[in-house]
Amino acid sequence: MSSAPITSIGIDFGGTSVKLGVCRDGELLCTDTPIPTANFHGPAALIGEMAARVAKLRETYPDIAAIGVGVPGLVDFEHGFVHILTNVPGWKHVPLKALLGEKTGLPVVVENDANAMAYAEFRYGAVRGLHNVVALTMGTGIGGALILDGKMYRGSNCAAGEIGQMSIHFDGRAGHYGNLGALEKYTGNQQIAEHALQRYAEAGIVKTADDCTPKSIAQAAQAGDDIARQIWDEVADWLGTALSSIAWLLNPDAFVIGGGVAQAGDLIFDPLKRKVQSMLSTVVWEHLKIVPAHFSNEAGIIGNAALAADSLQS
Amino acid sequence: MSSAPITSIGIDFGGTSVKLGVCRDGELLCTDTPIPTANFHGPAALIGEMAARVAKLRETYPDIAAIGVGVPGLVDFEHGFVHILTNVPGWKHVPLKALLGEKTGLPVVVENDANAMAYAEFRYGAVRGLHNVVALTMGTGIGGALILDGKMYRGSNCAAGEIGQMSIHFDGRAGHYGNLGALEKYTGNQQIAEHALQRYAEAGIVKTADDCTPKSIAQAAQAGDDIARQIWDEVADWLGTALSSIAWLLNPDAFVIGGGVAQAGDLIFDPLKRKVQSMLSTVVWEHLKIVPAHFSNEAGIIGNAALAADSLQS
Repeated sequence: MSSAPITSIGIDFGGTSVKLGVCRDGELLCTDTPIPTANFHGPAALIGEMAARVAKLRETYPDIAAIGVGVPGLVDFEHGFVHILTNVPGWKHVPLKALLGEKTGLPVVVENDANAMAYAEFRYGAVRGLHNVVALTMGTGIGGALILDGKMYRGSNCAAGEIGQMSIHFDGRAGHYGNLGALEKYTGNQQIAEHALQRYAEAGIVKTADDCTPKSIAQAAQAGDDIARQIWDEVADWLGTALSSIAWLLNPDAFVIGGGVAQAGDLIFDPLKRKVQSMLSTVVWEHLKIVPAHFSNEAGIIGNAALAADSLQS
Repeated sequence: MSSAPITSIGIDFGGTSVKLGVCRDGELLCTDTPIPTANFHGPAALIGEMAARVAKLRETYPDIAAIGVGVPGLVDFEHGFVHILTNVPGWKHVPLKALLGEKTGLPVVVENDANAMAYAEFRYGAVRGLHNVVALTMGTGIGGALILDGKMYRGSNCAAGEIGQMSIHFDGRAGHYGNLGALEKYTGNQQIAEHALQRYAEAGIVKTADDCTPKSIAQAAQAGDDIARQIWDEVADWLGTALSSIAWLLNPDAFVIGGGVAQAGDLIFDPLKRKVQSMLSTVVWEHLKIVPAHFSNEAGIIGNAALAADSLQS
């Protein structure tokens, strides 16, 4: 990766909108107006619109050499084939790499969105220069991705990194797949809210769900609310249990954590680090970093653009 | 790895004895009389004896081209440096690769014993030809090793694969490092025995610890003992919880399991497969194999010899 920087397009394909941007060496040169996903029925129409946008961007940036697309679902990376996007009607068995490549004449890589975000952090963000990285995105669910031995690790069916489905209790709450003790049934945003409502109720305090978003609980804790602090400690215990298991298994350099929970800052990172340290040997803990993500909304565009650019150099 | 087979020596360095063998392409051509570890005080004497044995073996096999040593402790693979062997007095900060290489004039690789055993299964055993493999050795503790994207994965400090330390319960039994819910505190041989004694006691049946080794419980289950069968089902629940978490994280092709528990055969593998399947999505489960190890005592020699031979070809 020592050659001259490559200009590439990153496309962040979400359930509600498709965001496009032009990048060079991790720098976002421009973003395009998002495409509302629902305005284009089926893959053909949406891919046509993507190609039109790409053509327009190439007028301004004629050196664009590749396109990276991140999609919210299961893909076959090698073939750039989308198996299924649960939240986008009609997206099932779509050879996205082939179709978009044909329409644009550019090399295309197709990646899972969590992997693309992790790659942005690995190449240009909070864990730049590290070798073994575990990335988490905390929201309604918990997504994850792995960079191992300096490369994206995808697993045998491009399905690796499902940290939210890992069990933290062999007899615990059932996850989406009937998997007992699924982490995201404890530390997903909704589960944190429910837990917070219960803790406040136990203390005789009436709160609404709006008071119990990660952001609101963080504000309450910062304002000196002991219950709110205790909630973060409990979230840290659950999340830290999963992270320590991953650390024992993979002995990584770093965890990088994005999403709503990560925005609570030290309120979550301090007890989380204490918990993980308490669960590890010195050797595994010593060099381990647990850091918030550097990128937020632009992570998808930058990561996909980087994957596309790097694919030309590998 | 398409070149002519290389003849190499595998050395399996255990707490009580050092076993040596000559291998070619996964075949064990001969084994030497084991060296009793306790007869040689300190690294220099033991390394001297290893070198003498190597010299003797080269008289019979003059084409021996490399040596692989597997040790029971933490090593720096890249430098062939032994950090510490907890169960072998005097083995701390030993540059084994350099010392044995100097004495023999042969290229030496030094590996952790669990990794070497996994490598034997990956190159010549039960998971030959697969790409992403998680290996477990079940005994007093639970060792593990990872082959990812077709290569040994060692982690940032050569400390990856500590499956026995992973948590299956965020508020469970404390492991060696204070890590709550450590898998080996549920499915280590001693813990299985204690659990079995308790289950029998609850049923008003008096048993001794000798009746509760994995082997004895397997024999009882085979003879129709319902309590023994129930014990295997419970072990499968605990072990399966950890394996499913690993599968969500790594989406591997296979788990290969060796050691006493694995010798219970279908008694453990059947409920284990049911449990793991019940915890996974179709995509992750579909192609996943859970198989017993092919090699037993000779795994260390074959794995270390293979690591040494392959290191000449990579």
